[in-house]
Amino acid sequence: MALIVQKYGGTSMGSPDRIRNVAKRVARWKAQGHQLVVVVSAMSGETNRLIALAKDVSPQPDGRELDVMISTGEQVTIALLAMALMDLGLKAKSYTGSQVKVLTDSTFTKARILDIDGDNIRRDLDAGTVVIVAGFQGVDADGNITTLGRGGSDTSGVALAAALKADECQIYTDVDGVYTTDPRIVPEARKLDSITFEEMLEMASLGSKVLQIRSVEFAGKYKVKLRVLSSFEEEGKETMGTLITFEEDSKMEQAIISGIAFNRDEAKLTVLGVPDRPGIAYQILGAIAEANIDVDMIIQNVGHDGTTDFSFTVPRGEFDRAKKILDEQVSPHVGARAVEGDKHICKVSAVGVGMRSHPGVASKMFRVLAEEGINIQMISTSEIKISVVVDEKYLELAVRVLHKAFDLDQAAA
Amino acid sequence: MALIVQKYGGTSMGSPDRIRNVAKRVARWKAQGHQLVVVVSAMSGETNRLIALAKDVSPQPDGRELDVMISTGEQVTIALLAMALMDLGLKAKSYTGSQVKVLTDSTFTKARILDIDGDNIRRDLDAGTVVIVAGFQGVDADGNITTLGRGGSDTSGVALAAALKADECQIYTDVDGVYTTDPRIVPEARKLDSITFEEMLEMASLGSKVLQIRSVEFAGKYKVKLRVLSSFEEEGKETMGTLITFEEDSKMEQAIISGIAFNRDEAKLTVLGVPDRPGIAYQILGAIAEANIDVDMIIQNVGHDGTTDFSFTVPRGEFDRAKKILDEQVSPHVGARAVEGDKHICKVSAVGVGMRSHPGVASKMFRVLAEEGINIQMISTSEIKISVVVDEKYLELAVRVLHKAFDLDQAAA
Repeated sequence: MALIVQKYGGTSMGSPDRIRNVAKRVARWKAQGHQLVVVVSAMSGETNRLIALAKDVSPQPDGRELDVMISTGEQVTIALLAMALMDLGLKAKSYTGSQVKVLTDSTFTKARILDIDGDNIRRDLDAGTVVIVAGFQGVDADGNITTLGRGGSDTSGVALAAALKADECQIYTDVDGVYTTDPRIVPEARKLDSITFEEMLEMASLGSKVLQIRSVEFAGKYKVKLRVLSSFEEEGKETMGTLITFEEDSKMEQAIISGIAFNRDEAKLTVLGVPDRPGIAYQILGAIAEANIDVDMIIQNVGHDGTTDFSFTVPRGEFDRAKKILDEQVSPHVGARAVEGDKHICKVSAVGVGMRSHPGVASKMFRVLAEEGINIQMISTSEIKISVVVDEKYLELAVRVLHKAFDLDQAAA
Repeated sequence: MALIVQKYGGTSMGSPDRIRNVAKRVARWKAQGHQLVVVVSAMSGETNRLIALAKDVSPQPDGRELDVMISTGEQVTIALLAMALMDLGLKAKSYTGSQVKVLTDSTFTKARILDIDGDNIRRDLDAGTVVIVAGFQGVDADGNITTLGRGGSDTSGVALAAALKADECQIYTDVDGVYTTDPRIVPEARKLDSITFEEMLEMASLGSKVLQIRSVEFAGKYKVKLRVLSSFEEEGKETMGTLITFEEDSKMEQAIISGIAFNRDEAKLTVLGVPDRPGIAYQILGAIAEANIDVDMIIQNVGHDGTTDFSFTVPRGEFDRAKKILDEQVSPHVGARAVEGDKHICKVSAVGVGMRSHPGVASKMFRVLAEEGINIQMISTSEIKISVVVDEKYLELAVRVLHKAFDLDQAAA
């Protein structure tokens, strides 16, 4: 018998039929003798509907009051799932964030979980009851309702699993696991049985949006065993999805590369011929940060003749704004020679903890791309990933040849 | 400076525009220096939408879980009204029933209020904040969310007024007060400046559905000054609606009759020739009660020859079911001669505390109806009302002539 926390997203809770399907899935796990805590999101679209309603009344809704409102989305689905479970003959009980209680700070609309009181839930579990908890929400020390921000239900699930010392936290989504790359680009992409926590972080931030980064970080911090599964697999045909492991747990042989991630939503900016002196990076990026533009890759090469070139990437939609800031504020101020930009780029990354002990990965990656005539515009590396920026038109080709070169289409030994 | 509790129903909260209008009205009262607690219902239609959604998932939804769901309707409107008030520059803060807390028993979907903790609200009021409270909902001793049943928001308003010792509880509706009768039937009907609590109870239960009976009883028990007003009157044209008074407060001369109430939703059943012996009423009505059919008027005349006739009225929609029970179960069992019924009747009532000291009211009522050729089928009286059952076709005529005969079209002296 295990204690399992399951989390179902808005798509899984999107209609009465789907809710009944979730109930059946929960009932099957329960029938295997497990204790179950189920964390649910609002029905898909509901949170947006509520936010739109708030903005209809008030152009800039107060954060405390917005949280009072949007927390109702999950309050509806916990009750519906509890009803559906009872109809299957199970004991079930719903909890709002306040009822649990999920204690958070008072940062309305993006609160952080501070503590979870698991006493009531444990008592219900011991009595054989399936406990259903509203994701995305909590309560601050003064009893105000708070919400955790977009994707907060994943975090709720992981935090509950940590507080209850659950054996596993299962995140049900509309995909059946984490793949070596996007199967729409590489049909041979394989589902990974497991992936390390660090790889998952890199995969998530690089565009494989299966899990919210924050929940993965949370799982890493509290060593929660996390599993991604599909809530749309038919009965009898369910797979076990992808398990997210921690290095300590997985001493076995690792594949060198676990996956090829990519991101189309990138644009490149280069400030040419800036003085190569301390503080120049801050002078350039400070103005960009002030304009609330996220910066992804940052590259500064060694200078020569006292000047250097400074490049970075931003989301494509922010390109024009960022270019204007560089042209009008930064360039004249730092005495740059010119500002160049390119909206038609993409980022392709090879991710794998195995590369730590296999130094040839980067050179292999560069060779494979060179053989296809793909020019590399920028390179950035971390301990477990190598990212390159290439012309957008090469994205599919680059992903495909790298996926094959690193044998990702072969089942693990 | 007074402490005023205002309650706005679902129609008043029905759209962003209407919510902003309520906010403006609240702001005008606040500008007069009053302390304000505002109790709100869900947007009109929302509670029904949620119940329908629950029934889509589960044919007989669990009561606890249904309350978790339907309490979200008011949780949305409290937040919206708080936002709208802040946009007008006021300090405002919303409270769910749990947050107040409004302690109830655990009878889900129709809980009774046991106690209200007014401490937090008082602190906010003293700080100049407008406090907005979700009507219709509370929390039981175990922290479960409860709801008070249909019309529960009125009860919430009155109970809060009692707990906070408010100077007045104002119930805003889509009518501008209590009238001497329905103006659609008698154009000369006048709005009453005041009506006694007992009269209001009789008027409400007789079909003038301005206020929920339960909230009026509550107001009576705790001596809360209750006022019915319209939330649709334009700024500058507001009237003070109708005040519901308690006899102790109103020693002045009373009008003999305050209003003519009526109810079309009635059907009459008579069991003829039943043995005139103890227990016969129970034998007849016991079977009706077991079938959950509400009985209104009950009349048993003195018998002769050892038998009597027993008549009662039921809601028209229950007539067929009640008739079947009498025919098949009751009549053979008690040895009745026959069962008769009539669906085409209505009830007309004269209501007024003044009739206690004016014995001629009943005879005047009967004379007026007789002069119009209206046959009286049943008569029932209480201390402050006289009700007659007549053929449905005479309803408008009876109401009109009685309204005139008791001078209700004349302004009070």
